[in-house]
Amino acid sequence: MGFFHFQLLKKSKKSMARLGIIRTPRGVIHTPAFMPVGTQATVKTLTPEEVSDLGAEIILSNTYHLYLRPGTEIINKAGGLHRFMNWQGPILTDSGGFQVFSLGSLRRITDDGVHFRSHLDGSPHFISPEKSMEIQAVLGSDIAMAFDVCAPFPCSYEEALEAVERTTRWAERSLKAPHAPGQVVFGIVQGSVYPELRERSAREITALDFPGYAVGGLSVGEPKVIMYEVLEKTTPLLPEDRPRYLMGVGTADCLWEGVARGVDLFDCVLPTRIARNGTALTSKGKVVVRNAEFADDFSPIDADCGCYTCRNYSRAYLRHLFKAEEILGHRLLTIHNLYFTLGVMAEIRQAIREDRFEEHMDEFLKQLNSTNVE
Amino acid sequence: MGFFHFQLLKKSKKSMARLGIIRTPRGVIHTPAFMPVGTQATVKTLTPEEVSDLGAEIILSNTYHLYLRPGTEIINKAGGLHRFMNWQGPILTDSGGFQVFSLGSLRRITDDGVHFRSHLDGSPHFISPEKSMEIQAVLGSDIAMAFDVCAPFPCSYEEALEAVERTTRWAERSLKAPHAPGQVVFGIVQGSVYPELRERSAREITALDFPGYAVGGLSVGEPKVIMYEVLEKTTPLLPEDRPRYLMGVGTADCLWEGVARGVDLFDCVLPTRIARNGTALTSKGKVVVRNAEFADDFSPIDADCGCYTCRNYSRAYLRHLFKAEEILGHRLLTIHNLYFTLGVMAEIRQAIREDRFEEHMDEFLKQLNSTNVE
Repeated sequence: MGFFHFQLLKKSKKSMARLGIIRTPRGVIHTPAFMPVGTQATVKTLTPEEVSDLGAEIILSNTYHLYLRPGTEIINKAGGLHRFMNWQGPILTDSGGFQVFSLGSLRRITDDGVHFRSHLDGSPHFISPEKSMEIQAVLGSDIAMAFDVCAPFPCSYEEALEAVERTTRWAERSLKAPHAPGQVVFGIVQGSVYPELRERSAREITALDFPGYAVGGLSVGEPKVIMYEVLEKTTPLLPEDRPRYLMGVGTADCLWEGVARGVDLFDCVLPTRIARNGTALTSKGKVVVRNAEFADDFSPIDADCGCYTCRNYSRAYLRHLFKAEEILGHRLLTIHNLYFTLGVMAEIRQAIREDRFEEHMDEFLKQLNSTNVE
Repeated sequence: MGFFHFQLLKKSKKSMARLGIIRTPRGVIHTPAFMPVGTQATVKTLTPEEVSDLGAEIILSNTYHLYLRPGTEIINKAGGLHRFMNWQGPILTDSGGFQVFSLGSLRRITDDGVHFRSHLDGSPHFISPEKSMEIQAVLGSDIAMAFDVCAPFPCSYEEALEAVERTTRWAERSLKAPHAPGQVVFGIVQGSVYPELRERSAREITALDFPGYAVGGLSVGEPKVIMYEVLEKTTPLLPEDRPRYLMGVGTADCLWEGVARGVDLFDCVLPTRIARNGTALTSKGKVVVRNAEFADDFSPIDADCGCYTCRNYSRAYLRHLFKAEEILGHRLLTIHNLYFTLGVMAEIRQAIREDRFEEHMDEFLKQLNSTNVE
């Protein structure tokens, strides 16, 4: 495991919310933490300095995308992903599994691994647990993810069972495969919405002694109440002294609900993705700055927000940029949305620190729900 | 004229190159100067702070585009263009004439003004000298341009003569029209490639006592040698105590050649426009980072360049960003191209200051021409 270390600083008395710190060779991560997504070796529109200044201590990048483009050979020659993209802090890479399964008819799963065709040019490829770890070793991420099988929602018990069994076998192979120096691997718990499968998966995966555990197979189309229900049955099965990562989740309400159920790490493309369409996140819900109603609205997106965008630009100007298809609009909303999301995480940490997490969560969700016109 | 003031600091002994300073209520401009273009109230991909940090002291924005979108009503309500787009420094606005003439069959010129159809939605519009000045007054630019007639290249003597005569009448009307407080208006000399028409236009326009003069109707398709020839016959006809602006010109060689012929101000979309396609400007010619040859080239665009992009990113990474259609690539090349172009201007000013402009120009053009593979 090398230098990697998770320290639990504080636990809430009324919920599973907890405050911690992850130490890695490339820097510390104050948890609960949100990881902005840099799918193609860039957090869309932003420089690494901007991502860092917004408060991100770790980013996520996607193995599947980088494997296809620019390819591992280029990143290997560059000296790894950090040097390639100029991000000095920790990086977590996913295993590529989720993306590959999302290809649908373009992929075929065997016990060995997954055969699939590139979404870029249709060329045939094969990723196994060993291959995923090999790619992630070349990328040189600080946290690599085990290659797992993510069952869709809805899925039958039999299908979910098969995914759990395969995930365990692939977790063993992922752990045995060579890693980059200083790189750790997180295990992933599957089991769909079936409590006994979640329990079995958690038991088998935690038996493998990973330095961190992810809850996979959630936020794949199921209602939020089901996600929360599955989550609160799963996290208690994970060791308290290891960080817990809820994959692909990161809207404000889910951040609070996830932390309340013992989650330490989150990632989500939403804040950066919806920025492209001119949608801004606020504590009172979404603001679609493209909308005609903002044409002569000279107030900021959110008068209470302290981000660069809100301090300097009006909704009218942002709307103009989107109507004129100017990139600066996309960039200014990305800044705002990450500032907001990372700000929610900071608010959560502060609330745990001050023993008022649950009260604060109630207030936050009440305000969000009372005004959210999503 | 208010606060606007041009001070000639130094003249070269061997050419018409000169060093000066323009004072405006919103800041000083060290001349010769290059103005980045912010057509739609944004210098593409960049924040105003970045544009300023790159060394720009004034930007250009386009009256035609802003008149159509977001429209003068919105910018008026915003309190002018500076507040709308958050640029604190001086702004020069063109008159809209050049864009309207470029519409071809979509426009009809009369003595009164130009009838045209919007390139956005085909709606009918009319811009006269008075209307152009009215729009520019709402924009609140520090330097407004007179509404002129830009003849195409090639064009007959008769056509060029008509453009010159109309340009003079419209210059008078532009000057008489109301302006924004503190705003000055520059006159524009036309005359196509005909020396006697340039002379007539210069005589008539300078008789109107504008605080600055532009050479229009160049860089409209004619060979560079012809542009230089016309320019060196025109600038001596303009008063030495007023800034001279060569419209729409800004490649590195033209900056040197223009300054050598007495030009103080330049603007050009090229540095920001070609950034979009992955083309970088360097003192040794263009580098098209999209090209396959750079896939595993881990050197910067230009090892001698001190810009943010060259200090932090490789050609291989930039190529990846363009192949993956990531906006950060467009942004990093915009930074590089403006740094380069504004850097050439700084180099030119330094050379004039140190009495070595002509020698330095020879060296610069020799290096550019020996390696330029454009």
